[in-house]
Amino acid sequence: MKKMRNIQILIEYDGSRYAGWQIQKNGCTVQEKLTHAIEITTNEKISLRGSGRTDAGVHAFEQSANFTTDSAIPIDKIPYALNTHLPGDIRVIEAIERELDFHSRYSSKGKIYEYHVLNNLHGSALKRNRAWHVRHSLDIEKILAGMEFLKGTHDFTSFASARSEVEDKVRTISSFDMRKEDSLLIFTLEGSGFLYNMVRIMVGTLIQTGIGKFEPEDLGKIMLEKDRRCAGITAPPQGLYLKKVLY
Amino acid sequence: MKKMRNIQILIEYDGSRYAGWQIQKNGCTVQEKLTHAIEITTNEKISLRGSGRTDAGVHAFEQSANFTTDSAIPIDKIPYALNTHLPGDIRVIEAIERELDFHSRYSSKGKIYEYHVLNNLHGSALKRNRAWHVRHSLDIEKILAGMEFLKGTHDFTSFASARSEVEDKVRTISSFDMRKEDSLLIFTLEGSGFLYNMVRIMVGTLIQTGIGKFEPEDLGKIMLEKDRRCAGITAPPQGLYLKKVLY
Repeated sequence: MKKMRNIQILIEYDGSRYAGWQIQKNGCTVQEKLTHAIEITTNEKISLRGSGRTDAGVHAFEQSANFTTDSAIPIDKIPYALNTHLPGDIRVIEAIERELDFHSRYSSKGKIYEYHVLNNLHGSALKRNRAWHVRHSLDIEKILAGMEFLKGTHDFTSFASARSEVEDKVRTISSFDMRKEDSLLIFTLEGSGFLYNMVRIMVGTLIQTGIGKFEPEDLGKIMLEKDRRCAGITAPPQGLYLKKVLY
Repeated sequence: MKKMRNIQILIEYDGSRYAGWQIQKNGCTVQEKLTHAIEITTNEKISLRGSGRTDAGVHAFEQSANFTTDSAIPIDKIPYALNTHLPGDIRVIEAIERELDFHSRYSSKGKIYEYHVLNNLHGSALKRNRAWHVRHSLDIEKILAGMEFLKGTHDFTSFASARSEVEDKVRTISSFDMRKEDSLLIFTLEGSGFLYNMVRIMVGTLIQTGIGKFEPEDLGKIMLEKDRRCAGITAPPQGLYLKKVLY
């Protein structure tokens, strides 16, 4: 007798060519490519649940998704089988057999994101779709001081897209670090949950703090305003990486 | 009165889309794109001399080239002006005013290359055109031991393309190191000069040493054979980076 299985897959992707994660009518998406590859492999119609959406141009070192199937394909064969049917800018890097109640979104305990800012005069040919190129000289001390006002539990309304539809905008950022590798600034954030565009608006506002448009303590005041218009710009998508989904 | 100037430019490029450095009839090249951008900027016909060719798919962190011009454009404005007329996968990162006898090829004292090998099971979406994906498990100690036989001054005939046309195949590799960053092996080589495909054949043979096809001491024997057919495979172009031209 066939048995239903719940398969989690971990996926790396280069978001440059895609209209984001979520299947949509107008545009090619990562979820659509994966669904197609899984349906060919299992010879079943499946529904692929992701841990959350990523926007057009956003990358993932390790997105997480799951699907149920009656297929008996061995778990360690799944990445090879799916990768055969996927373009090179999407790779399934692991498949894990889960309990039937595992859900890649609702079982998640948090996420880690990275945001890459390239801070030099003339940009980079090799990183052109992999980082936000910022030409201005940046006051790193001010950026680090500004980050302190974003850590912890707050109502992040000011740092979420006005199109964000969830009611409760209180979230917790449990860690927020920045390291420098030559001219690359790499921000790493871990949180229990993130609002729509939240990482990109926080990074955009921090970079404007480094340029001098905001003072670090302004970020605390912006948080209290609960008004998206008080924060800075939304950093572009190509610097953002979903690094890990935590369970 | 107009004065002739000799301008050196340093160029970063993503070689994925190009048929290499050198202008050719069938295929779009980096030299062609740069020449076009310089001719628009200076409003002159120019001849762009590169430090050497790179093959299709090979990248450069810092290629060097020079051209003479009567244009009075300030030296620090040149990268901005050229980048305006270049696609995003080619960036001029610096321009330097040189003596008239400076030649980016003949004045060069050596070059530094990097070669990136991605050693994991399922490859990488983000590094797919940036590294050679090798799935086999590798004996790193054997690779390091093999590298010792390639350092120094040798006749590198066995490690050069049979199509290489130069007579004297004696070259000096003054340093050859390898470091590991997660699943990425990064080889760094410095030498006074390199033969056609020399880095790629050395890395191909070293990886086959890590797999067990060659023993480290075989590399010394292969060197003495002076026969390309004795060495291993040519590693693919997308892992190779011209890192710096030395003057």
